[in-house]
Amino acid sequence: MPELLTRLNLQGRVALLLANPDRELGLEKRPVPEAMMLFSGMKDDCHGGLTRKSDSRMLKQYRRGTEVRNSRQLSILSVEELAEVAETMGIPVVKPEWVGANLVTRGIPDLSLLPPSTRLQFPSGAMIVVDMENHPCRYPADIIARHHPEAKKGFVKAAMHKRGVVGWVEAEGAIRPGDAITVWIPPQRIYSHA
Amino acid sequence: MPELLTRLNLQGRVALLLANPDRELGLEKRPVPEAMMLFSGMKDDCHGGLTRKSDSRMLKQYRRGTEVRNSRQLSILSVEELAEVAETMGIPVVKPEWVGANLVTRGIPDLSLLPPSTRLQFPSGAMIVVDMENHPCRYPADIIARHHPEAKKGFVKAAMHKRGVVGWVEAEGAIRPGDAITVWIPPQRIYSHA
Repeated sequence: MPELLTRLNLQGRVALLLANPDRELGLEKRPVPEAMMLFSGMKDDCHGGLTRKSDSRMLKQYRRGTEVRNSRQLSILSVEELAEVAETMGIPVVKPEWVGANLVTRGIPDLSLLPPSTRLQFPSGAMIVVDMENHPCRYPADIIARHHPEAKKGFVKAAMHKRGVVGWVEAEGAIRPGDAITVWIPPQRIYSHA
Repeated sequence: MPELLTRLNLQGRVALLLANPDRELGLEKRPVPEAMMLFSGMKDDCHGGLTRKSDSRMLKQYRRGTEVRNSRQLSILSVEELAEVAETMGIPVVKPEWVGANLVTRGIPDLSLLPPSTRLQFPSGAMIVVDMENHPCRYPADIIARHHPEAKKGFVKAAMHKRGVVGWVEAEGAIRPGDAITVWIPPQRIYSHA
């Protein structure tokens, strides 16, 4: 049987885990010492669920509010890209709390450019599948602007292709800060009929 | 909001739908006049389910039999690639029934090479997400060999990169033969750290 997934020759790490149990409290999340990944998403986080209502990102595909499978259970960003965004904006730091991150990685270069269907594997057996790149939107921009009205450049432009990825849980298990992350990517090629 | 999915400038069609309600009857599926796509997969097909047991394809990622989200709810092949495989094998036809197809398309070139996270949209609102390419294995090879012991070349080699894709249901709805298929692909690029 040919192997479809290739293991990347690099070692990612979990830098931080964050959750927000109540969407009414806003987009901001808070650091947690451990996170349980369930098929329905991260336990005690308001972005979980097997399905969700489609939003403004999908208006070309769905009437707003259509019930769709939740491929955005988790928002994943990297320490490295967050630092680049802060530098571009001319502010000391963009905190993962401000941008709705659930999982912050270290050691995976260009995290936002990981191919769709990439698998992120954790020591407990938990596995997260990348749906695709996340795109910067106004909500975190507003939060950052409250903290740093002096920013030289806006978040949406500064964070383009550095906003991380969204994904969903393929196998359940706990994740903790410091955990190793093994990255498996599918075959890479450009579809020529696009 | 930047759009992440790009609509391909081509028109796919549903050529055939097939189901097999009982796995004990074997891999072969039978044509059906309509198929209902549910979050749990194709109704009345034995490959449905929100989760499934991991198999030999995933031995590098999971101990066999691990409960994982089912990203293989549907097996999708194309009329065009099936014809190419038959030609390479030197037989008149490779029937979709023999290879476990649920959905056979027409008009989507190089279906097997569609990028992961591609969305296939149907008139009812049903949407299928491509997990990735399927790889040819022994089971259909054995079925074809029973029908065509004289084949010039084996199925596994002839069908490499022509075995279609597997996917899961993002939005529910019915699909019928003749339905139009709209194809949406994610941003294309090669991850340079592989």
